[in-house]
Amino acid sequence: MTQIEAAKSGKITKEMRQVAESEGISPDVIRSRIAAGEIVIPKNKNHHLDSAIGVGTGLRTKINANVGSSPDRADPANEIEKARVAADAGSDAVMDLSTGGDIEAIRNGIIDQVPVVIGTVPVYESAIRAIEKRGALVRMTVDDIFDVLEKQAVEGVDFFTIHAGVTQDAIRRLKAQGRVTDIVSRGGSFLTTWMLANNQENPFFEHFDRILDIARTHDITLSLGDGLRPGSLSDATDRAQIQELITLGELARRCREHDVQVIIEGPGHVPLNEIQMNIQIQKKLCNNAPFYVLGPIVTDVAPGYDHITSAIGGAIAAWAGADFLCYVTPGEHLKLPDAEDVRLGVIASRIAAHAADIAKGVPGAMKWDIEMSQARKALDWERQIKLSLDPERAGKLRRQGKPLDEDGCTMCGEYCAIRLVEEALAQK
Amino acid sequence: MTQIEAAKSGKITKEMRQVAESEGISPDVIRSRIAAGEIVIPKNKNHHLDSAIGVGTGLRTKINANVGSSPDRADPANEIEKARVAADAGSDAVMDLSTGGDIEAIRNGIIDQVPVVIGTVPVYESAIRAIEKRGALVRMTVDDIFDVLEKQAVEGVDFFTIHAGVTQDAIRRLKAQGRVTDIVSRGGSFLTTWMLANNQENPFFEHFDRILDIARTHDITLSLGDGLRPGSLSDATDRAQIQELITLGELARRCREHDVQVIIEGPGHVPLNEIQMNIQIQKKLCNNAPFYVLGPIVTDVAPGYDHITSAIGGAIAAWAGADFLCYVTPGEHLKLPDAEDVRLGVIASRIAAHAADIAKGVPGAMKWDIEMSQARKALDWERQIKLSLDPERAGKLRRQGKPLDEDGCTMCGEYCAIRLVEEALAQK
Repeated sequence: MTQIEAAKSGKITKEMRQVAESEGISPDVIRSRIAAGEIVIPKNKNHHLDSAIGVGTGLRTKINANVGSSPDRADPANEIEKARVAADAGSDAVMDLSTGGDIEAIRNGIIDQVPVVIGTVPVYESAIRAIEKRGALVRMTVDDIFDVLEKQAVEGVDFFTIHAGVTQDAIRRLKAQGRVTDIVSRGGSFLTTWMLANNQENPFFEHFDRILDIARTHDITLSLGDGLRPGSLSDATDRAQIQELITLGELARRCREHDVQVIIEGPGHVPLNEIQMNIQIQKKLCNNAPFYVLGPIVTDVAPGYDHITSAIGGAIAAWAGADFLCYVTPGEHLKLPDAEDVRLGVIASRIAAHAADIAKGVPGAMKWDIEMSQARKALDWERQIKLSLDPERAGKLRRQGKPLDEDGCTMCGEYCAIRLVEEALAQK
Repeated sequence: MTQIEAAKSGKITKEMRQVAESEGISPDVIRSRIAAGEIVIPKNKNHHLDSAIGVGTGLRTKINANVGSSPDRADPANEIEKARVAADAGSDAVMDLSTGGDIEAIRNGIIDQVPVVIGTVPVYESAIRAIEKRGALVRMTVDDIFDVLEKQAVEGVDFFTIHAGVTQDAIRRLKAQGRVTDIVSRGGSFLTTWMLANNQENPFFEHFDRILDIARTHDITLSLGDGLRPGSLSDATDRAQIQELITLGELARRCREHDVQVIIEGPGHVPLNEIQMNIQIQKKLCNNAPFYVLGPIVTDVAPGYDHITSAIGGAIAAWAGADFLCYVTPGEHLKLPDAEDVRLGVIASRIAAHAADIAKGVPGAMKWDIEMSQARKALDWERQIKLSLDPERAGKLRRQGKPLDEDGCTMCGEYCAIRLVEEALAQK
């Protein structure tokens, strides 16, 4: 049985108990929200995880780090190392988006060696195999697609991004819209190229029942991708985007009817003042399916700092109800990220997720901040470092600024506000 | 005449024209908002600025960088260099918060060499002089305070932070509140120490008329400081904070009545979901005086990354109506920032301010993002780098990830979504 099938039948699985315990929420609440499609537990039956995680309503906001090779940078060891760095920095999930070199070795290395939830975008491998075997992406066959889905399912991938909403109708609306940046999703661009060249409907849309069968067999969560997500602030929340979202809402319903867990992917590039609306319309059109957003970044002009532009957008998105944040690294829009980019991306996303969890009242979120503030008040530096989201970095900066009096810091030296006030209040 | 005095009398000054031109807003709108106290032009009559800037309703969100020595780190050349780095990175203003070494040399070096708006917190120098001359902060006299105010006014400081709202009444309410972190403002802690030891009212509050006279003579903008700003999320928006804000609202009214320009300082540490409320209550209680916020940071647990926690808070604050963002550096809570911390702090604040300006529809803000997106679509890398908020950093990352095909990047290599879609759409 899949988690949603079990939940519908009233059964509380081992994974539901793990999620309930780690979130501090009763197992039956978890079960009922899984049954309603508001929470998913992305975990392939073939994949061992020490503890399952849940994504959705009322839970701690989860984060994902994208790694993976490109034709220009294709060293498997590098990509496996980046996945490990992401997990060590606290990412809940890793997506392997490899498109260069031995992508099977990279994926299996990550699955074997990195103990977090693993996702992929199978159309990448299907497209690359088609190019290798048949000389062109546009010659990709339906078998190329399903061979890869079956193989990755058996290998233990926990969730698949499936761009089934890039329909001929949506592409027609995209053209009618007139965008600044057209399509920036790699999966979306592969499918659009294939569909226009072959004058056929999206094969993932056409054969969605076959995908459901595979997902159900292995309990793979389907992450319905937004292949038409805007690639610039000026294209945000346009008719093409919302057209695709309507289709994703319909497909999400079919997932649930077939006992397949489903989440919805979202943008991307969104001005601050449109983020809440994006979350609300997704929750509405997709019957409260968990929402997985990429960033969003809130300005286009800061390449080199898109971990910051996306932390701003991610915090607001998660506060407004997004359940799962895909990180963005400082290298976004410029290059394939390296390990340090990955680490910074994960940290920035964790900050966004935690700030949002405080704002939306996730059980226990505020406790961490209170403990840190108590350590600050006590001028207990060891405890402040230990409680830091990144203790190594906090400790390094503290050592860089070694104060004359070790109780204080070099910001104020002897004029430490906390100490002055402590003494002043004690005397009265 | 001060700017507000001129504005009230219907006169459009040279500075108002400069602001109008740089903001793309008519001079008469600027004038009328200055008269209403909704915009200030912080510029001491004795300070040359190539172009004055405005802070307030409808204008581009401005940012400030704090620099300055502490007793532990007191090299004047370092602090002047940090101020220069801040200005070069795009900060609209610099506050010199020096408390160590030759603070007069540092301040005058910055005023002479760094061509931006300059602010100070005069009570720092008054307290330090009192300690030097009389052996203790608590022996500071009213003359110590006004000697410094007069001196700094003549030197050309554009705005003064004045913690006149830390009254005996507010301190009583602070004690009744029971905070985790009591007082974290250095100015607030100096005054609380002095007031409790001497059992007297806050001298800045008591002698506010004398401060108004000095400010009016030199057209110094008063920035009414929040000495009781919360130092932790758990203390945010409490009775002590709002008690002080009520007093600041009353003092702001007196400023306007005396033709003195005034802005209000705000927190600090604020959960995401309380930021908009903080802006609204300030604007309401202070009759739409420009709001100058420190951050705010949205979680306490990320020392080493408080440029990011504050970019999240600053973006939301500015979107909700804050007019002036004080940066926070990665070194906050750990050490006095160095030049690289300053640079990162300014960049993060500029990102927050610009993202908010797009959201609140500041004239021209979105144009920059559209130009960048057009350059992305055209795969025009030179133009993308040039349009970047930090071209040096963007160029460096681009060079780090030198692609095989120079039209693309190492993220996707030959599978560039933009190029694939361009070709696919062109063929139909």
